[in-house]
Amino acid sequence: MQKLDVSLAERSYPIYIDRGLLGQDLIRGHVRGNQVMVVTNETIAPLYLDAVTRGLGDLQCDTLILPDGEQHKTLATLERIFDALMAHRHSRTTTLVALGGGVIGDMVGFAAACYQRGVDFIQVPTTLLAQVDSSVGGKTAVNHPRGKNMIGAFHQPRAVVIDTAVLDTLPEREFAAGMAEVIKYGLIRDPEFFQWLLDNQAALAARDTAPVAEAILRSCRNKAEVVAADETEQGNRALLNLGHTFGHAMETFTGYRDWLHGEAVSAGMVMAARMSLELGWLKQADLDRVSDSLAAWKLPVTAPEGMARADFSELMALDKKVQNGRLRLVLLNQIGDALVTGEYDPNALTRTLEAFCER
Amino acid sequence: MQKLDVSLAERSYPIYIDRGLLGQDLIRGHVRGNQVMVVTNETIAPLYLDAVTRGLGDLQCDTLILPDGEQHKTLATLERIFDALMAHRHSRTTTLVALGGGVIGDMVGFAAACYQRGVDFIQVPTTLLAQVDSSVGGKTAVNHPRGKNMIGAFHQPRAVVIDTAVLDTLPEREFAAGMAEVIKYGLIRDPEFFQWLLDNQAALAARDTAPVAEAILRSCRNKAEVVAADETEQGNRALLNLGHTFGHAMETFTGYRDWLHGEAVSAGMVMAARMSLELGWLKQADLDRVSDSLAAWKLPVTAPEGMARADFSELMALDKKVQNGRLRLVLLNQIGDALVTGEYDPNALTRTLEAFCER
Repeated sequence: MQKLDVSLAERSYPIYIDRGLLGQDLIRGHVRGNQVMVVTNETIAPLYLDAVTRGLGDLQCDTLILPDGEQHKTLATLERIFDALMAHRHSRTTTLVALGGGVIGDMVGFAAACYQRGVDFIQVPTTLLAQVDSSVGGKTAVNHPRGKNMIGAFHQPRAVVIDTAVLDTLPEREFAAGMAEVIKYGLIRDPEFFQWLLDNQAALAARDTAPVAEAILRSCRNKAEVVAADETEQGNRALLNLGHTFGHAMETFTGYRDWLHGEAVSAGMVMAARMSLELGWLKQADLDRVSDSLAAWKLPVTAPEGMARADFSELMALDKKVQNGRLRLVLLNQIGDALVTGEYDPNALTRTLEAFCER
Repeated sequence: MQKLDVSLAERSYPIYIDRGLLGQDLIRGHVRGNQVMVVTNETIAPLYLDAVTRGLGDLQCDTLILPDGEQHKTLATLERIFDALMAHRHSRTTTLVALGGGVIGDMVGFAAACYQRGVDFIQVPTTLLAQVDSSVGGKTAVNHPRGKNMIGAFHQPRAVVIDTAVLDTLPEREFAAGMAEVIKYGLIRDPEFFQWLLDNQAALAARDTAPVAEAILRSCRNKAEVVAADETEQGNRALLNLGHTFGHAMETFTGYRDWLHGEAVSAGMVMAARMSLELGWLKQADLDRVSDSLAAWKLPVTAPEGMARADFSELMALDKKVQNGRLRLVLLNQIGDALVTGEYDPNALTRTLEAFCER
């Protein structure tokens, strides 16, 4: 078993990575009170809910099964979690367990942040994307109809338990979506990892145990380092949002339905790379490497059909990274070296949108 | 003008107290970005909204007017605040201004805690209760149908601006409800203040400027000291909840409609004092002093009509102060000296409920 720590003083917590962790007592070991509620979705419940609750039998253990999908990441679904907690009389010493992908993790984490002004929660991510990104770092949220993750909190989990065996049941498309965030770490701060991912593409696509665990470990280590240095995104944590401002606009445009989050991030990272090229920072060959690394996973590298420049402008103006009217973007100096800036020639953004949109 | 500081390291902030502060530039001086949204209710808007917005003319200043009343302190109303912020494209650098009583302050504060994972807000309390209690200390929340303040966050304001002139329009019943929380500070930690309040009862009831300002100042000072020592209620901050566990049960029983919060706290403090008597901690003469000090303001000192012992037991079991199945209560060693404890003879609670309920 691999163990990493996210170092945040009294809010520090471990990340465990191995095959078969759901059958062990790691979750139980991080519950401090005598109540626990496992929240999952309709897809995951039949596969893994029993394995998780089996180890919690000495506690008051309640379960809640939510519908699956980003379109359910709303205040209305959040209210269902509060209703269940109140109905089963969960107190301030309860622990929520988020068993699922990024949607479950973000939503359960936010419920834990707000219930009685804050209770414990444990992340048990079941998608590659959640394992390498959303379960680590304490960003929690639900979506607003006009924008993704607009309502949320910083609330760190007590532990992250990553059982790589759950990836055996993950659909190919979801696995690829997770790879978009894995590749992201290479692009923003770890050029060696980017090269390693290219070199191990075939083994990763075959989901060989060792390289998949290695990719998760290196992703989590990158994430943990960034989060430890800037928990609430006052500075460099924003680098983790490479491709996300473009990506969120595409997700909102497609109603959180047609594209997976990782797919939108993939196309968004290509747009960020293209804009970096327009600014004269990135070479054409590097833009091609970025695009090819994602296309190899059959991830989208262009904007959704029918999305116009005006749609991007409209939706990106609502992004959380707008500060006093200026849109800050994550761009690339080179592969493995990203920066956050609002200081750029706006024409480069215009040309980028022109390149990606028909009108 | 009186100025107090709530000392919380980088989250420290000032409380300003004086007549006529709404017409000054104090609110403007604590706005860091270029957007502000003033959220108020239908009762307060015609009285004071203009005075507040007049000083914010150089900013993007939007307003939102919500219905008045504790029954609207819900997730559904919270969503209206998010909708307005998104519709007017407020960014992470916006500032919310909570212009109203405790309901507005708690709800706007919670909206500020969650919007884009946290934006600035300024408290401009317009009831005595909000001025002396709820606007100070960063507790924010909305109610759940099954329990008060069950969904919320700790989120400190940038400033609290208390214009005592707004009390001129406050109904007598609301003024008295605020006095319940003022008297609370005397009961839990400031016996001299308790005596001062008795001595100045007539002048306070006549709303004489100087004694009212003095009562607010001494209340806020007590609150600020308690909060500075224990921001997130790991310990002695819970003393501020004297009467609140009983009170919340009464508010929930009456559907947040019939009783004002301060009225429920008044009856709840008498119940806490009675239980302290049952435990042999408080003398009968002191219980009478507590009860008389509240009755002098025509505040309730008995339970609501029709509320049975079983209703209390049921509703108090959901209180946030339940830890691992044990209900912790704030009780009185003597007037001016409270304690929080789960270590008490449960029969004393039973006898207290018997004394206050017909069945």
